[in-house]
Amino acid sequence: MKIRYTLYTLVIGSLLMNAQENLDFSGRKNLLSPEVNGKTVTFRLLAPKASSVKIQGNWMPAKGTEAGSLDLQKGRDGVWSLSESGLSPDIYTYSFVVDGVKANDPNNSYQVRDVSSVMSMILVDGKQSENYKVQNVPHGTVSKRWYASKGLKEDRRMTVYTPPGYETSKEKFPVLYLLHGMGGDEEAWMTLGRASQILDNLIAQGKAKPMIVVMPNGHTSNSAAPGESSKGLYQIEMKTSDIFSGEMETYFKEMMDFTESNYRTKSDAKNRAVAGLSMGGFHSLYISANQPKTFDYVGLFSPAILPPDINMSPIYQDLDAKLKIQQANAYKLYWIAIGNTDFLYKNVEEYRQKLDKMKFKYQYVESEDGHTWSNWRTYLNEFVPQLFN
Amino acid sequence: MKIRYTLYTLVIGSLLMNAQENLDFSGRKNLLSPEVNGKTVTFRLLAPKASSVKIQGNWMPAKGTEAGSLDLQKGRDGVWSLSESGLSPDIYTYSFVVDGVKANDPNNSYQVRDVSSVMSMILVDGKQSENYKVQNVPHGTVSKRWYASKGLKEDRRMTVYTPPGYETSKEKFPVLYLLHGMGGDEEAWMTLGRASQILDNLIAQGKAKPMIVVMPNGHTSNSAAPGESSKGLYQIEMKTSDIFSGEMETYFKEMMDFTESNYRTKSDAKNRAVAGLSMGGFHSLYISANQPKTFDYVGLFSPAILPPDINMSPIYQDLDAKLKIQQANAYKLYWIAIGNTDFLYKNVEEYRQKLDKMKFKYQYVESEDGHTWSNWRTYLNEFVPQLFN
Repeated sequence: MKIRYTLYTLVIGSLLMNAQENLDFSGRKNLLSPEVNGKTVTFRLLAPKASSVKIQGNWMPAKGTEAGSLDLQKGRDGVWSLSESGLSPDIYTYSFVVDGVKANDPNNSYQVRDVSSVMSMILVDGKQSENYKVQNVPHGTVSKRWYASKGLKEDRRMTVYTPPGYETSKEKFPVLYLLHGMGGDEEAWMTLGRASQILDNLIAQGKAKPMIVVMPNGHTSNSAAPGESSKGLYQIEMKTSDIFSGEMETYFKEMMDFTESNYRTKSDAKNRAVAGLSMGGFHSLYISANQPKTFDYVGLFSPAILPPDINMSPIYQDLDAKLKIQQANAYKLYWIAIGNTDFLYKNVEEYRQKLDKMKFKYQYVESEDGHTWSNWRTYLNEFVPQLFN
Repeated sequence: MKIRYTLYTLVIGSLLMNAQENLDFSGRKNLLSPEVNGKTVTFRLLAPKASSVKIQGNWMPAKGTEAGSLDLQKGRDGVWSLSESGLSPDIYTYSFVVDGVKANDPNNSYQVRDVSSVMSMILVDGKQSENYKVQNVPHGTVSKRWYASKGLKEDRRMTVYTPPGYETSKEKFPVLYLLHGMGGDEEAWMTLGRASQILDNLIAQGKAKPMIVVMPNGHTSNSAAPGESSKGLYQIEMKTSDIFSGEMETYFKEMMDFTESNYRTKSDAKNRAVAGLSMGGFHSLYISANQPKTFDYVGLFSPAILPPDINMSPIYQDLDAKLKIQQANAYKLYWIAIGNTDFLYKNVEEYRQKLDKMKFKYQYVESEDGHTWSNWRTYLNEFVPQLFN
C-alpha cells in the first residue's frame, strides 16, 4: 500500500506547513480519554506544566456553592488521570479545570452545548441508555426548517423529525410538539435530549407509533439557536423578558398551522401531543389550556409552573375556566413528571393540588434527582410510547 | 417585572444546588471574548493561576515544526488578553493554550469541529465574509437523511440542502453533489464550509440558480460523522484505507439514484454538478470520468490528484480513455482551483499538463495560500454562480 502511505506522509507533512488546514484525523492522538469500561470511566489529560488538574462532571455532587469536582493525579510523562466507577448507564458531561481554567477533553471530539457552555460528553452503556445511542435501526430524517411568523414578523427556525419511511410513504402521521427549557433552543432536544435516537429506537422496537416531532424555538426574542440567526455568529443573547410575555403560546398556532400544511399530518386532537421541559412545560400547560380541544396528549416534564403576570397576556387569564373546558373534553393523557429534589417540586405540587381539587385527570411520575437532562431523556422515553394509541 | 425576577432568582439559585442542570444563560459571564471591532479582535481569558496563556489561531504563521501561537499578557484580576488587528474578513478558528493545555474560549459558545479537533470560531465582517453569515434572507432546509446502500450493505447518512421554497413548489431542481476532504464527513461543508449560508445568500442575490446540494459521507468505512453512527458516541475512527479503494466512486451512483428518486430533481447532465475539496476533488475527478456523460459541471477544489493503485479498482483504470469520452461530450465547466502554496500544487500542475496535452478544456483559478477552508469557502462562492446557466 505504498501509495496510501505516500498520501499519508504528504498530509502529515502538510500539518507542519504554514496555512495548511488541519488534516490530522488520527483522532485520539497519544491518549485514550475517556476510556469507558463498563461502568468505569478513566479520564486522562497530558498537562506536564500544570500544577493542578481537576474534572467537573455533572454526576458529581456540588460542594456548598461550588460545582462538584475531583482532582486528577499526575503520573509519568505529565499525564494526569482519574477513574470513576459505578456510573449508571446514561449520558454525562464533563470538563477539565487546568490551573483554574476550564478545558474540554482534547481527546474526546464529542462535545455538546448546553446553553452557552460547551462540554465533553460520554455515554455509559446499559439498559437505561440503549435508546440514547445510534443503533443499527432505520433512522428518521432530521431537518432544520424555517417558517414565516406573521405574528413575530420574522422567519423562525425549527427542528423537524420525520419517521423512517416518511418520504416514500403516502401516509399521514400524528405530531408531537416538543418544547425546550429556558436555556435551550430548537437544537436542545436533539443534542442533550437525544430525541431522534429515542424516537428511532422506540419506533424500531414497536413501542412507539411512527410520528412527526416538531421542535420550535421557544424564545420569541430569538429566531434561531446562537450563531444560526442573523444576530451573528457567536453572540448569545437570550432574554428572560420573553419567558412570560405570552408570545410563545400566542404564536404557537401559526407554527402548528405551518406544520399541518407543510407535512402529511393527521390534524385532529387525537393525533396531536404537546410536551415540554421546564419553561417548555409551562408553555405546554398554557398552550393546551388555551386551545382546550386541540391536544389529546399533554406532557409536563419538570414544568416551571410559576404564576405569570396575568396582565402580560390574555393567554394567562382565566386558567381555571380554560382547564374546565379542557377537562370536559375526553383527552387521553395529561402527564406530569418531576424529580424529587427539583427546585420546582413545590410549584408542581401546588398545581397538582389544584388539579386534584377540580378532579382534573392526570398521571404523575416522580423520579429521583432534580432538574436534569437525565430526567428529561427518561421522561421522553416513557412519554412517547403512550402517545397516539 | 417582579415575577420574572423571581423566576430568575430561582434559576440562579438552582445552579448552586446538587444535580440541577446548568440553566445559566447569561452567556458571556464576566468577560467579553472575543471582542470583534472591525478588523481588530481582542481575546480575553480569566486565568489568575496560570503562568502562561497562549493563543493558537489558524491565521498565524507556523514557526518551524510548531503551530503558530502568540502570548497573551496578564492584566489586572488575572485576565489575560491579546488584540490582533488587520484580520481580513473571513472565518477564523482558535484555541487558548493554558500552561501547555489546549482550552477553548469559555466565553465564546460558538465552536466548530474540524476532523477530531474542536475549536472556537470567529467571523470578521466584510465583503469576503458576507455570504458566510446568516443574513436576513429566505433560508433553505438542511436535512440529515439516511439512505440504504446495497453496495456497502448499510444505511448511510447524508446532508441535503433544499433551496427556499422547495417544499411548497412543484418545480424540479438541478443538483450539486458536494464532497468533503479526507478529514471530513457529511457535516464538514455545513460547518466550516458554510455551504447553506453561501447558497442562501447567492440565491437571494440572484447570483445562483435555486438548487439542491447533496453532501454524502466520502469515507466508505464510516456510515456517518463521529458520534452519529452506531459505532459509538465519541469514537473517531477514520481510516486511510478507504481513500483509494474505489468504493466511494463505485457506490456514488446508488446515492445519486436515491437522490433523484427521492427529491424533485432535473435528472440530466446539464442539471448535475459534482465538486469536492482535497480527497473530494480526487473523488469528483474519477466520478465524473467514470460516468463521462453524467455531469456537465465538475469542480476540483485543491484536489488530491495522487496516482491511485490501478489494481485497487476498475474505477482507476484507463483514465485517459475515459477523459477522452468526457471531453467528447459538450460539458459546460471543468473548474480547477488551488492555492499557490498548497502542498498538492505540483500534483495539480501535472494533471493540468495532462489536460493541456489532450486539449481537455478547463478553467483554472489560482489563489493565495494553501490547503485551507478559507480557500474552499471562496471556491464554493465562486463556483456555484457558474452552475446550471
